[in-house]
Amino acid sequence: MDGNAVPPNCLAGIRVLDLTQFEAGTSCTEALAWMGAEVIKVEPPNGGEAGRRGVADPYYFMAYNANKKSITVNLKSERGLALVKDMARKADVFTENFAPGAVERLGLGYDVVSQLNPRIIYAQVKGFGEGSPYEKGLCFDPIAQACGGAMSITGERDGKPIKPGPTIGDTGTGMLLAFSIVSALFQRASTGKGRRLQAAMQDSVMHYSRGMFIRQAQTGSPAQRQPAGGNPPHGIFPCKPGGPNDYVYLLTSRANPEHWPRLLKLIGREDLIGDPRYDTAAARVEHEAEVDEIIATWTRERTKQEAMAQISGAGVPAGAVFDSMELTNEPSFAKRGILQTIQHGDWQMTMPTWPVRFDGAPPPIKPAPLLGEHTAEVFDEWLGLDGAEVEALRKQGVV
Amino acid sequence: MDGNAVPPNCLAGIRVLDLTQFEAGTSCTEALAWMGAEVIKVEPPNGGEAGRRGVADPYYFMAYNANKKSITVNLKSERGLALVKDMARKADVFTENFAPGAVERLGLGYDVVSQLNPRIIYAQVKGFGEGSPYEKGLCFDPIAQACGGAMSITGERDGKPIKPGPTIGDTGTGMLLAFSIVSALFQRASTGKGRRLQAAMQDSVMHYSRGMFIRQAQTGSPAQRQPAGGNPPHGIFPCKPGGPNDYVYLLTSRANPEHWPRLLKLIGREDLIGDPRYDTAAARVEHEAEVDEIIATWTRERTKQEAMAQISGAGVPAGAVFDSMELTNEPSFAKRGILQTIQHGDWQMTMPTWPVRFDGAPPPIKPAPLLGEHTAEVFDEWLGLDGAEVEALRKQGVV
Repeated sequence: MDGNAVPPNCLAGIRVLDLTQFEAGTSCTEALAWMGAEVIKVEPPNGGEAGRRGVADPYYFMAYNANKKSITVNLKSERGLALVKDMARKADVFTENFAPGAVERLGLGYDVVSQLNPRIIYAQVKGFGEGSPYEKGLCFDPIAQACGGAMSITGERDGKPIKPGPTIGDTGTGMLLAFSIVSALFQRASTGKGRRLQAAMQDSVMHYSRGMFIRQAQTGSPAQRQPAGGNPPHGIFPCKPGGPNDYVYLLTSRANPEHWPRLLKLIGREDLIGDPRYDTAAARVEHEAEVDEIIATWTRERTKQEAMAQISGAGVPAGAVFDSMELTNEPSFAKRGILQTIQHGDWQMTMPTWPVRFDGAPPPIKPAPLLGEHTAEVFDEWLGLDGAEVEALRKQGVV
Repeated sequence: MDGNAVPPNCLAGIRVLDLTQFEAGTSCTEALAWMGAEVIKVEPPNGGEAGRRGVADPYYFMAYNANKKSITVNLKSERGLALVKDMARKADVFTENFAPGAVERLGLGYDVVSQLNPRIIYAQVKGFGEGSPYEKGLCFDPIAQACGGAMSITGERDGKPIKPGPTIGDTGTGMLLAFSIVSALFQRASTGKGRRLQAAMQDSVMHYSRGMFIRQAQTGSPAQRQPAGGNPPHGIFPCKPGGPNDYVYLLTSRANPEHWPRLLKLIGREDLIGDPRYDTAAARVEHEAEVDEIIATWTRERTKQEAMAQISGAGVPAGAVFDSMELTNEPSFAKRGILQTIQHGDWQMTMPTWPVRFDGAPPPIKPAPLLGEHTAEVFDEWLGLDGAEVEALRKQGVV
């Protein structure tokens, strides 16, 4: 835990019954946990949820399950299902992202759970929305990124579509659902009524890719891949020493005609200021390759950090392409508590915390729970079962 | 407005004083507006906020400012500033994403506003966090995507970094801040106290790119570009008729050894089932190019829609790469209310609504406001100024 970190505690007292797995659902409940909700992860006794099971290391699980509690319950046993139903009566939020139809087959569909607890916020993630022709299809992050348009707008201008590295289909969906859940909780404080929330990964990817509908409205055609904007120089430029991420991204804005002469002055090409080949945005579009080469000649002689500092220092927006290790080694992230190093059993990992600061402080990270770490504690606190009862359930294979 | 759409109304009664511009801030307040908050966009009388100004068409503005009200105020006039301070006394949320230092220079920094209204949630977006070496730098979406690691994990395996098309730096940040704001509002209902929230675009991009810290923990090296996963066949395959987005993405999972034989059966290559060159995940890694060609030979003879239907029908996850026009023309999006067509003055645009359904319904979209459309109405309702007073202010250049 970081020394400066303070839990925001916004959702203290809120109880989340969390049947999520992998990333789309787990990232949602992790956000709720960062805000102080008590998130109880319900996992099968035999190996835990799918994101924990059958992988050689727990890093994936650790990233998306910080601050939660884990209990094991065999949902296929009658008693196990009854226990989870008892918990549903006391929960504020129920979440799941099983394959289509699975939660209903388990006996925990919306009709059942909302009957048990009309105040509950029942929140689901599926790949495709109810009423979509793909409604029954399995989905993973890259499938949602393909079907939601994100790949069609990512890549080189004349190249093939590329999958964006960030998990917009997974964590992207999780964030939209988390916001919707808290909004519903806010409303429930006055209405007393629960709600049913449904997020589809394809629809969520479209939300983060909305820029494509702007370009389509402007042109009447499908949005194309624009690795850079339409206003040269704009895009990614090579830096020394030429490693895979030694690039700087810079942009000149059509709205600010000063960017171009500022750049020329910085790179010692004042001779080109006013040159009609490059002087207007339209002229630079026409001579894009030359314009890019003028800039690249300069960036190639600098590291990306030098280029970023000098270009942005000259009043032109620029950013170095940082990789995960460079970010980890940049000391201000640890100092600001944005990156924290956590321990889970024998495993250690440096990972980001919730990025929004509350009153100047980031939240601490409590490492993801070990499988069933909180079974006894939670059954005691939620259902009043004592240690002997839980032990008996364990022997019967119920928990 | 879509016939089946119903406003969720979760944040009814919440008043947002919205000084945001472009996308990172506006997408945040748009989300609050979708949940039913009254979002008052404060814009300069001369042309409006930066995302509205100096562009040939209003599509960009329309996409990120649905459901809001617009008032004009000249913040550089003493009276204009005083009016906005009066509004801050009555607001629940204050939001801004000006360049570093600008809101303080306007006289609306955190110290001032929280003094006027200790219950206010004061929420800011900047490019880089307080304490970052880049704290004072200007930022736009692609700069944040470069500096937050997203570009380093996007692109071909041996190619250069690519900017993801989805605006993770802008809308991505906006979503994290919107969730944090509603969480703070929920908390305020019991504490009565406001909070200060700060989101940095670089930090937010890291949140959506967290997968890179998992891969780094696994390998001890910076996360590399993985256009597909590590388990062939996995990735993007060409389809007919060979247009720029005629591809299907499919994946076989290491956790499910059935995917490979299912695929072989589907494509009529049962002869390869059990072939030691391809039978294990490790063998397929070794023969990746051949494996990919076996699949591509089949996909090239099908459209992406046929390939998606048949592959996912065979129990292997697959998704067609859809572009913006294909999504617009897919009738279920309009039927489900996920895409809606709106009118703003003379301009029409098809755009996505908030993607999470509440009780089965998507929210309707109210088109983004015209500049100053609600000036008289809002000054009346918030501050009790009558029409003549507002008209006088207009003549003085205050509103």
